[in-house]
Amino acid sequence: MLLRRAVLPALVLACLLPAAGIAAAPYRSAQQILKEAPDSDWRTPDPANLLYMDLPAGRVIIELAPGFAPRHVANIQTLAHEGFWNGTSIYRAQDNFVVQFGDAQADDPAKAKPLGSAQRHLPAEFERDRAGLAVSVLPDRDGWAPQTGFVDGFAVGQDPQAGKVWLAHCYGALGAGRNNAEDSSVGAELYVVTGQSPRQLDRNITLVGRVLQGMELLSALPRGPAPMGFYEDAAQRTPITAIRRASDVPVAERTPIQVLRTDSRTFADTVEARRNRVDDFYKRPAGHIDLCNIPVPVR
Amino acid sequence: MLLRRAVLPALVLACLLPAAGIAAAPYRSAQQILKEAPDSDWRTPDPANLLYMDLPAGRVIIELAPGFAPRHVANIQTLAHEGFWNGTSIYRAQDNFVVQFGDAQADDPAKAKPLGSAQRHLPAEFERDRAGLAVSVLPDRDGWAPQTGFVDGFAVGQDPQAGKVWLAHCYGALGAGRNNAEDSSVGAELYVVTGQSPRQLDRNITLVGRVLQGMELLSALPRGPAPMGFYEDAAQRTPITAIRRASDVPVAERTPIQVLRTDSRTFADTVEARRNRVDDFYKRPAGHIDLCNIPVPVR
Repeated sequence: MLLRRAVLPALVLACLLPAAGIAAAPYRSAQQILKEAPDSDWRTPDPANLLYMDLPAGRVIIELAPGFAPRHVANIQTLAHEGFWNGTSIYRAQDNFVVQFGDAQADDPAKAKPLGSAQRHLPAEFERDRAGLAVSVLPDRDGWAPQTGFVDGFAVGQDPQAGKVWLAHCYGALGAGRNNAEDSSVGAELYVVTGQSPRQLDRNITLVGRVLQGMELLSALPRGPAPMGFYEDAAQRTPITAIRRASDVPVAERTPIQVLRTDSRTFADTVEARRNRVDDFYKRPAGHIDLCNIPVPVR
Repeated sequence: MLLRRAVLPALVLACLLPAAGIAAAPYRSAQQILKEAPDSDWRTPDPANLLYMDLPAGRVIIELAPGFAPRHVANIQTLAHEGFWNGTSIYRAQDNFVVQFGDAQADDPAKAKPLGSAQRHLPAEFERDRAGLAVSVLPDRDGWAPQTGFVDGFAVGQDPQAGKVWLAHCYGALGAGRNNAEDSSVGAELYVVTGQSPRQLDRNITLVGRVLQGMELLSALPRGPAPMGFYEDAAQRTPITAIRRASDVPVAERTPIQVLRTDSRTFADTVEARRNRVDDFYKRPAGHIDLCNIPVPVR
């Protein structure tokens, strides 16, 4: 009967079998590799680029990506600084897709919340030039992009021929909702990916960052009953107490957080440990990993 | 201000631009294609292979896959027929991974629920021979398997050289949890994929079916606070009222359900409509779709 408490390991356990292709080195799980990582492999995000989204159930921490969407990020920083989202809500949760938040009345000019000193119009920021960017490229094949990899903790697609790099719609990605016009987002209405990575949206919407901590506060929300997961009944929406830049919060009230450097050897080793799992549980190492199956460790 | 109510379309809207590669035919969204599908493209699952998982919040409907895991499916049918899961619980919800359910006390021989006339030991059923199986193969590249496609609504990987086919860990896949030994699952402790497709588990665990309806009753459960998403506090678990075979339920109490045939032209057309979305929203059709990004329509 002992065996029936069938456990799926989240992180593989230690064992001493050799990893595929590395004849001598003992296999180390991603968890072990992280434990042994030097402090210098961890970076502390700039508090100007961190958002604290405070919900009744707790805090969601977001890192913005000014390197990819500088105009949107600047607008979001302005909106946060001026308290735009305080008292707004999460007004959409669509199963296996996204949650969306901001001003639920944005459609109604008579009731829409003013944008303060934020810009009313921005260009689309779907991709950026590769120049000046160090992408840690994955060797694994991908159907959506010629190449994939990471930049400063953000999952990216890359087209070396076109010289373009873009943020990818992985779990936890933060995007700027828009209407049909590609330049119709300003960063006030935002969404977070909570389902199977909708990579078909890559280069179709401006992504602006990703959730570092607190995803379970978004992903476990009851799905909205209206089409596309909207809550028409305002009582079902999740109130947003505040969204603030960490840099606007007194130092004593900030949540300490660090992100593993994705250009570190430690990160590459954790990816390889997941690509070829060699332990007592796995019978057949995959020999592959998808961009959106790679967690970027946070502590 | 109208533009700020930034909507992400779940299904693309109609328009008259030509689809890529089909010069003359007007683009039809997956939704439109489904509307126009003949009744013969829909199949009614065998009620012997359907499970009704009744939770306080509603009904989850599961289709078993006897073609892939005949021994496990037979055991699950026995367990359901004998009411094994009635009064058990969902005792694990790990964010971006799985929910798991069955007998939370299975580990404790003194308290474990008896398995009745079900088998206590089964062989692993990780893959099956390709012979006799018609796989609707996708042209899209995949990192985890040489080929992917569908069989009777189930997402599969395929190795034509080895002559093997296996069920894939996509959203909604139902698997038989096991311990380290590959033949340690009997189908009493089950899990459902609720996160980014953990395809590294393909051919490492016996998959036994998939959820057809009611995923949001599983995916939106609060995540378990203990490691790997377990709820140590029994009060936090979600009680399972009953899991029954539809064939054991009076006809009048069954939930009518049909699944689109994945060997139909209609299904192929919906996949193409998602692979190359041509509408007012999408600016750049992906030209690709991943196995686990393809929903198999249910009505």
